[in-house]
Amino acid sequence: MKEKITLVKFGGKLIGKERELSLALAAFAQISGLKVLVHGGGPEATELASRLGIEAPLVEGRRITNEPMLKVAVMSYAGWVNKRLVAQLQALEVQALGLSGADLSVILAHKRPVKTIDYGYAGDIDQVNTDRISFLLNNGIIPVVAPITHDGKGQLLNTNADTIASSLACALAIPFQVHLVYCFELPGVLKDAHDPHSLIPRMNFQEFKQYQEAGIISGGMIPKLDNAFSALDSGVFRVYICQAEAIPYIHSSEYSGTILV
Amino acid sequence: MKEKITLVKFGGKLIGKERELSLALAAFAQISGLKVLVHGGGPEATELASRLGIEAPLVEGRRITNEPMLKVAVMSYAGWVNKRLVAQLQALEVQALGLSGADLSVILAHKRPVKTIDYGYAGDIDQVNTDRISFLLNNGIIPVVAPITHDGKGQLLNTNADTIASSLACALAIPFQVHLVYCFELPGVLKDAHDPHSLIPRMNFQEFKQYQEAGIISGGMIPKLDNAFSALDSGVFRVYICQAEAIPYIHSSEYSGTILV
Repeated sequence: MKEKITLVKFGGKLIGKERELSLALAAFAQISGLKVLVHGGGPEATELASRLGIEAPLVEGRRITNEPMLKVAVMSYAGWVNKRLVAQLQALEVQALGLSGADLSVILAHKRPVKTIDYGYAGDIDQVNTDRISFLLNNGIIPVVAPITHDGKGQLLNTNADTIASSLACALAIPFQVHLVYCFELPGVLKDAHDPHSLIPRMNFQEFKQYQEAGIISGGMIPKLDNAFSALDSGVFRVYICQAEAIPYIHSSEYSGTILV
Repeated sequence: MKEKITLVKFGGKLIGKERELSLALAAFAQISGLKVLVHGGGPEATELASRLGIEAPLVEGRRITNEPMLKVAVMSYAGWVNKRLVAQLQALEVQALGLSGADLSVILAHKRPVKTIDYGYAGDIDQVNTDRISFLLNNGIIPVVAPITHDGKGQLLNTNADTIASSLACALAIPFQVHLVYCFELPGVLKDAHDPHSLIPRMNFQEFKQYQEAGIISGGMIPKLDNAFSALDSGVFRVYICQAEAIPYIHSSEYSGTILV
């Protein structure tokens, strides 16, 4: 049987809140066995860009990574957020190592080709160097991955953190039994976003599509779930969507979030 | 005999210049055997602070690392500068891994105690975890170290890059034969800063003190050389002070910079 690995993705909103982040890191520290943390950027980059007077153009609702925004993203995600998480995890005796996709070339990407829209320095992932991540994991090292990739030719690129998490999860699913955890501010997937008691504890792809058609699941949750189900299709063992408090219980009956099967 | 390792420190002015930096990275890539790169921050942090309207108080000519400046330093040094160097080295097929002192807890420091001056989040180094750096090196990984440390309790700290370089060199001098290279914009230590032909090719501590008394060596070069000679005292095999072009030749008779013995 393959060895179990838990890959946790911290949502952006979590990163911005000091107390919630500490609790989430403590929960991550409690996970036994091999683990990886992937983090988003949170409000840091947007706030820094606004203080610097940098405006990232929005095209069809999507932010374009122009050159100044790439620099802001690298500074915020791979710099301030990543190093702070690493320092806090070290204080919790987790042997954390911060990584961007450029470090050990763990994630290679290419600049998204220009068709009708030029997304600027947005990176679409080509390759995850699973061997190098496995090498770190097998030596007791816990990778903390920032949503920055590179093209192997010296160019850094900005890649969505959910995409990083699912790509890593799929790549690691070959050597490991991967448990992918999307940790965010809500208790799980809710039928009514304002009612935490409306949690869907277990959902398969067919049920997801039914909820989506009925308009029960909508907005930003849809690409997240599409991503998650496609990870299951690619060999990821389980996907969990929950808040930080539930992380230590994902492998037990006390788990209180959503499981995708 | 101990295995040879080359530890190169890139000066701050180099970091700020695109073309010079590329040449220096190409020179670093040519070094054979085990190697480590330590980099300063260059004008990045100062420029970013000024754009953000952050003023770092100067006390007795030394910049104080207040909280906003710490964030700027982490973003610039461990973020933008470090990741760009890593991506460029990867493009040169160097298996680079960016590190702050917090990553794998490679450099532990403490906040400088307040006596007459509160230096803020300035970190004085307590411990270099040589085993972890050796582990990386022995597995073909090239550490690229940013001048940021941590206290092991979750606090990041700002530490001078020359100090990082000499502390790493001294710690690595136990398992390795360390060749420490200070790479900057001048050909070496000059008798006349404006005349590159006035280079001092070889200097011992006594000669340094004579040059200093005669006012031939002055300014910022003095703490750099004090640091360098103290590294030699602590077991570092050789110290080189040179510009990037000379790096590939440090072990040959074609070397054109200054050697401290």
